[in-house]
Amino acid sequence: MAIFRRKKYVYSFKEGNKDMRDILGGKGANLAEMTNIGLPVPQGFTVTCEACNKYYADGMKISDSIIDQIYAKMDELEEITGKEFGNPENPLLVSVRSGARASMPGMMDTVLNLGMNDKVAEEFAKVNKNPRFTYDSYRRFIMMFADVVKGYDKSDFDKILEDYKVKKGVELDTELDGDDMKKITEEFKKVYKKLAKEEFPQDPEEQIIEAVTAVFRSWMNERAIVYRKMNDIPQSWGTAVNVQEMVYGNLGDTSGTGVAFTRNPSTGENKLYGEYLINAQGEDVVAGIRTPQSIDTLKELMPKCYNEFVRVSKLLEKHYKDMQDMEFTIEKGKLYMLQTRNGKRTGNAAIKIALDLLDEGLITEEEAILKVEPKQLDQLLHPTFDSDELKKEKPIAFGLAASPGAATGGVYFSPEDVAEAKKKGLKAILVRMETSPEDIQGMNDAEGILTLRGGMTSHAAVVARGMGKCCVCGCSNLIIDEKKKVLICEDYIFHEGDFVSLDGSTGMVYGKELKTVSKGLSGDNKRFMDLADKIRTMEVRANADSPKDAEVAFNFGATGVGLCRTEHMFFDKDRILRVREMILAETQEQREKALNKILPMQRKDFEGIFKCMKGLPVIIRYLDPPLHEFLPKEANDIKELAYILGVTPKKIKDKIDQIKEVNPMMGHRGCRLSITYPEIAKMQTRAVIEAAINVKKEGIDVHPEIMIPLITGVEEFNYVKKIVDEVADEVMKKKGATVDYMVGTMIETPRAALKADEIAKKAEFFSFGTNDLTQLTYGFSRDDASKFLEHYYSEQVFENDPFQKLDQHGVGKLVETACRLGKRARKDIELGICGEHGGEPTSVEFCHRIGLTYVSCSPYRVPIARLAAAQAAAKEILEEE
Amino acid sequence: MAIFRRKKYVYSFKEGNKDMRDILGGKGANLAEMTNIGLPVPQGFTVTCEACNKYYADGMKISDSIIDQIYAKMDELEEITGKEFGNPENPLLVSVRSGARASMPGMMDTVLNLGMNDKVAEEFAKVNKNPRFTYDSYRRFIMMFADVVKGYDKSDFDKILEDYKVKKGVELDTELDGDDMKKITEEFKKVYKKLAKEEFPQDPEEQIIEAVTAVFRSWMNERAIVYRKMNDIPQSWGTAVNVQEMVYGNLGDTSGTGVAFTRNPSTGENKLYGEYLINAQGEDVVAGIRTPQSIDTLKELMPKCYNEFVRVSKLLEKHYKDMQDMEFTIEKGKLYMLQTRNGKRTGNAAIKIALDLLDEGLITEEEAILKVEPKQLDQLLHPTFDSDELKKEKPIAFGLAASPGAATGGVYFSPEDVAEAKKKGLKAILVRMETSPEDIQGMNDAEGILTLRGGMTSHAAVVARGMGKCCVCGCSNLIIDEKKKVLICEDYIFHEGDFVSLDGSTGMVYGKELKTVSKGLSGDNKRFMDLADKIRTMEVRANADSPKDAEVAFNFGATGVGLCRTEHMFFDKDRILRVREMILAETQEQREKALNKILPMQRKDFEGIFKCMKGLPVIIRYLDPPLHEFLPKEANDIKELAYILGVTPKKIKDKIDQIKEVNPMMGHRGCRLSITYPEIAKMQTRAVIEAAINVKKEGIDVHPEIMIPLITGVEEFNYVKKIVDEVADEVMKKKGATVDYMVGTMIETPRAALKADEIAKKAEFFSFGTNDLTQLTYGFSRDDASKFLEHYYSEQVFENDPFQKLDQHGVGKLVETACRLGKRARKDIELGICGEHGGEPTSVEFCHRIGLTYVSCSPYRVPIARLAAAQAAAKEILEEE
Repeated sequence: MAIFRRKKYVYSFKEGNKDMRDILGGKGANLAEMTNIGLPVPQGFTVTCEACNKYYADGMKISDSIIDQIYAKMDELEEITGKEFGNPENPLLVSVRSGARASMPGMMDTVLNLGMNDKVAEEFAKVNKNPRFTYDSYRRFIMMFADVVKGYDKSDFDKILEDYKVKKGVELDTELDGDDMKKITEEFKKVYKKLAKEEFPQDPEEQIIEAVTAVFRSWMNERAIVYRKMNDIPQSWGTAVNVQEMVYGNLGDTSGTGVAFTRNPSTGENKLYGEYLINAQGEDVVAGIRTPQSIDTLKELMPKCYNEFVRVSKLLEKHYKDMQDMEFTIEKGKLYMLQTRNGKRTGNAAIKIALDLLDEGLITEEEAILKVEPKQLDQLLHPTFDSDELKKEKPIAFGLAASPGAATGGVYFSPEDVAEAKKKGLKAILVRMETSPEDIQGMNDAEGILTLRGGMTSHAAVVARGMGKCCVCGCSNLIIDEKKKVLICEDYIFHEGDFVSLDGSTGMVYGKELKTVSKGLSGDNKRFMDLADKIRTMEVRANADSPKDAEVAFNFGATGVGLCRTEHMFFDKDRILRVREMILAETQEQREKALNKILPMQRKDFEGIFKCMKGLPVIIRYLDPPLHEFLPKEANDIKELAYILGVTPKKIKDKIDQIKEVNPMMGHRGCRLSITYPEIAKMQTRAVIEAAINVKKEGIDVHPEIMIPLITGVEEFNYVKKIVDEVADEVMKKKGATVDYMVGTMIETPRAALKADEIAKKAEFFSFGTNDLTQLTYGFSRDDASKFLEHYYSEQVFENDPFQKLDQHGVGKLVETACRLGKRARKDIELGICGEHGGEPTSVEFCHRIGLTYVSCSPYRVPIARLAAAQAAAKEILEEE
Repeated sequence: MAIFRRKKYVYSFKEGNKDMRDILGGKGANLAEMTNIGLPVPQGFTVTCEACNKYYADGMKISDSIIDQIYAKMDELEEITGKEFGNPENPLLVSVRSGARASMPGMMDTVLNLGMNDKVAEEFAKVNKNPRFTYDSYRRFIMMFADVVKGYDKSDFDKILEDYKVKKGVELDTELDGDDMKKITEEFKKVYKKLAKEEFPQDPEEQIIEAVTAVFRSWMNERAIVYRKMNDIPQSWGTAVNVQEMVYGNLGDTSGTGVAFTRNPSTGENKLYGEYLINAQGEDVVAGIRTPQSIDTLKELMPKCYNEFVRVSKLLEKHYKDMQDMEFTIEKGKLYMLQTRNGKRTGNAAIKIALDLLDEGLITEEEAILKVEPKQLDQLLHPTFDSDELKKEKPIAFGLAASPGAATGGVYFSPEDVAEAKKKGLKAILVRMETSPEDIQGMNDAEGILTLRGGMTSHAAVVARGMGKCCVCGCSNLIIDEKKKVLICEDYIFHEGDFVSLDGSTGMVYGKELKTVSKGLSGDNKRFMDLADKIRTMEVRANADSPKDAEVAFNFGATGVGLCRTEHMFFDKDRILRVREMILAETQEQREKALNKILPMQRKDFEGIFKCMKGLPVIIRYLDPPLHEFLPKEANDIKELAYILGVTPKKIKDKIDQIKEVNPMMGHRGCRLSITYPEIAKMQTRAVIEAAINVKKEGIDVHPEIMIPLITGVEEFNYVKKIVDEVADEVMKKKGATVDYMVGTMIETPRAALKADEIAKKAEFFSFGTNDLTQLTYGFSRDDASKFLEHYYSEQVFENDPFQKLDQHGVGKLVETACRLGKRARKDIELGICGEHGGEPTSVEFCHRIGLTYVSCSPYRVPIARLAAAQAAAKEILEEE
């Protein structure tokens, strides 16, 4: 006879431990852990995350087997507590709280005092001789049940309470007595009946199942979905539900409830930090009606309790090896722990705490490195708004947090106007429908950039991140009229020069000037980053297109330039003219003439970059974008260009039409340009090699790595490499000098990844261009996809934006394949990534795991990538132990 | 001590055999084979294809080791023949001919009588007492050496000969005597000296090395490159060089030279077919100065020779199991074989010969199937120009042979003008810069389509092939003015209605009306195709978008519809209006209203297709293209639409701007449409299921297979499948009927291929959309790539167009991976291909090899695919034996 083992959906606290977070959620696992190390925890049980997933899989129905197991655990809890669910004389009341695998503060809902009903309240008040406490508990339960379980508006209930206080002429809840509370309870029940069209449920067994179901349901409420999306928490995790015996902070002046951190979460200072309220329950502390007291005052008020809490918090910190965020309740002078978890903290605090814990001998260097979220470094690198000031402000709009930092300035609607404003010493925010390469100068002049269209990888976003400039993108609820120079949001009209403030770290837009504060990488921060560099094994290079970028990158600790996009050098006002001349050339001769004018400019840029990088490797990518990106679009610009070049505007228009493409992303660009116009590759090689020779003459070491973009196989690579080698040889011979250069390629078409073995036989390095590789692997145009991807997210077809976070199982599979094939053909091949993903922590970890030599990202993300790379190495070390 | 084995670059005929074609080339291998089976072959040796490749690898230098080996074989040849190279009294003269692995007739050059010089000529004439023959040979040698080895213009020499004949008052070369020939030789030498600025080389050893090198060089001459490209012969094969003792057809009236086929290459009749010239050498037969005689006349002239030749040709046919194309020379009544090879033949002849050889018991069924080139079937299926008439015409232009067939008609420059002409009963050719979906009706009305832009997979090409309509594309040397309605080529201007003729099988355009002839699939052809169907294991379905297409497909033997592009149903004048209404809808409700108008039309089409296919499977792809393809482009059309829909033209223009995309290929299309507008998938499902139920009611079996396009992973598939299943259930319930439908997907993004295991768990079939898969794997936009791909071919970066011939090692790798993963997850998964490659023979073979269930191609290519599939199966059987 087979024995069927029932799937376990409910665990009592005694059955769990802190490593069961995947099953029990964070809160449940930690309640179990605290129980097991003997801390004072009101007992209870956890309904698992799997139960939640089953609930959704069963079509939002809670199955009988889950209900059975909950009731069984209730029986157990009655035995432990000696109380009885629904017994008026000795009632067991419980709290029901959500608790997902990752902390999602405030995202889901809690029900307290469950088990209360008319009869229980009546008898219980008699037994405990505290009608105020009893009916305070009951009325709270009714309100939370109505709000959380039934989804009714809390304000109806709040109003009753407020009206009652006004009528009685008091200010605080604590000034109400038992009678008041009872009356309020009656009122609450009436409102409930009106809303629900039925009486408030009296059966505790019904109450608990409804409450558990409501927590499951809350997993899919809108703010939970948004929070998950913002924090990359998979929907498939589900949430657990914790049912716990109530302890009462509202049992009078020797009771209370509070929250505390073992260290200061804002500064990292090693000192207990928190606040509490006497005679209060649950959310009163954060609700802000009564001002909570600092935890320090508890020392005098209840010294025994305080000392016990200090002991517990030290013990927890040591046990979890991290700063803890705790919730506690004091019931008649006795301390109960309701929750502990690793506390959230600011970037500065995170670094200080990590280093302190290391110095205190509590954690190893690898563990210290893992204590700071890489993206927290943003706070240290970019200016931010004063957080106190920010609390008071309401944003007028929000878009995508495209490039972090804070910026404040007047709105200007063209790069020219921004430049004008800057000349006058005014701070300017460039506001555009979307930006184009011609806006670069204006973007550089502006304090920040605001666009109405475009996603995280739109032109504005990519360029702004490259510049380390604050940018909010795709702010589609704004309206702009670039000609009339006005920006309109629902209630306001902003004219040129009117102040707005952008928070590039949150995507918020504020309608006034806000103060910014700026920090840097020194002191503790420097010590922490040095530790990261010690642990990481992967190089971190930077995408840098100019000497200025290279300087920033070097100062942020980049170990080389991973991508120098030579086309970005061409957008300067006086240079683009030469480029346009080259494009408009009818013959190879004319083209060469124009290229000869570009040569000295490009050479000078390379010299600047080589000097900045002081002998570190510099990867130079040859001209990549479709040529039409360089041509003017506006009639006036066309006329101007025609005048300067001495041709008719029609000729320019014709040429623009001629090189227009249906799908420029997959058109005449990349190495295809060098194959059709070899003179471009020739000029660029000349510029690279001459610059290298010139800089070497000054005694500075130079390692240029020439990169051929967008190949689909080895044939294209060979074709361009031959040009490079021939010109390099010629230049070196002529100058009587040698340059130690490499020639490699981007892997950014799926085919190149599939043919990497053949390519690696000829190419000395690969750089994965994961932006284009993602576009082609998905067939998603970056410029167009946001339109339907937004829908994909809202319909939960996709969870992540593959342009932000490397798609490890699709695109990543191609990257892995190419690495494997590449190494097989050339053992010492240099492998790197230079897409936007190079600065995204989970993608950096992936890169470490598959054995890349380096990641390359925008200069301002270099510290983040350094830390992410260190964390990947640290995890590997810790896993091996 | 190590023994170094010298690489063998030269083989004597005795050392080779017919299976060494890769090393010796076709001619060399067959000369060796004929030697070994005892046929009368003048002896000699072959310099290998590898030697040719080495020549190029060494920078176009013939290495010493190759020269040494040639000289060694010359020594051997002297021994065999008893003659001596350069010995005036008994000179060994040789021919030097190219011979690549694949036959490339007329593509490369031959040098005869090598070894001749002043001294040899003088003495030899005395010895053989035939000065005419001697100096005829010498002067031929000088001319061929000047032409082939040195690259001088032959006409200078021809002119001397002509002038001489005029001066002497004779017409034929044979009327010149030895003295004349000697004088002409002297003149030839003078011309050579003038051109070469040095004397004609007298050293035979120098002559032979120069001649071999010249043959190597000829491998890269322009016509050879063009021929290879047209016939898909890899450049890497190289050519071999055959050096052979001369036999002389110019030794008087008992000598001669000729070419013959063992059967008639035009009709396939089993009867010796050929011609010869008495007292002639080499190219005289084909040069056309003297009219050659039919081989039949040889029977009377030289019965012994004739009988010997008949014996040899029968023996060869039996030996090679195929119709042979032979060259022979008769020297003083003795027959020598100079070449044999499988003969080229017309499509009709190919089929007749294959069946005859089968009936004669010479070959098996599998071998018979392999005797016909699939693309030869085109000749049987499409009308062609009368070949005799064609010989007289010179094309005025040429483009890409985009869709086979022949068409003649007046030129018209808009679909409307074509329709107008058709109404008047006139034949029209639609001439456009490029076509767009709005031109469909005009394309259908026209006899043929001529475009100036676009490649083999441009809109015009794809649609024309689908229609079985003759089309020449990308005819870029023409100029068109669509407004003035003129077509201009270098020397002519064609006004509306002026006649041109298009040959869609060669890409040629003729400036007048030409007669067309049409054949079909009956008699022998039918018997042959039945045999093909017996052998093939893969299904052959058709891409059919209308009942008309489906009928053609069914009649051509399609086993189902592999791809019904539902959007093609929408371009009809009265339908596109509804589609536009749908696109312009502001709300879901409006959109549904418009869709409801489309529903009955689509349902009717499906009914028609289901009926035609009589129970065979029909794969229906849901709406795929970007929506803007449906919107009008011209101001007038916009106005008209605005009027009909009762909105302002501005509104329509705004909407067009709004849905404009930067890269529409990778934009809002495919399943992305059904995810953002589920009502489209709902309407299409309703149409499919209702149509199926209606047709089933008539007693016809129906197997619809619903196909979701452009997914990137299983999530999108699940989303749309859910809609399909829900609507199908609802319709079936309502109608009280069931339909046995499947839901599957296109695999056309690289990511879908990589995630095929997950997808196959949910999808019942895969159809590889290799057009889009090729675009994305390479990052080549079909619409834009021709511009640089042309350059890729001319620079030999690429050998093939990956849109025509499936890229087996890149794109094909993804297809293979997806098949493997798909079968692992679902054993009985239906796998097919529906890209343009489905009708291309090498791609069909690839599909067979990786185990696809079916290929799908345009109706007119179905017979070709049937044969290609049969050949793939036949090869497999023969390999296994």
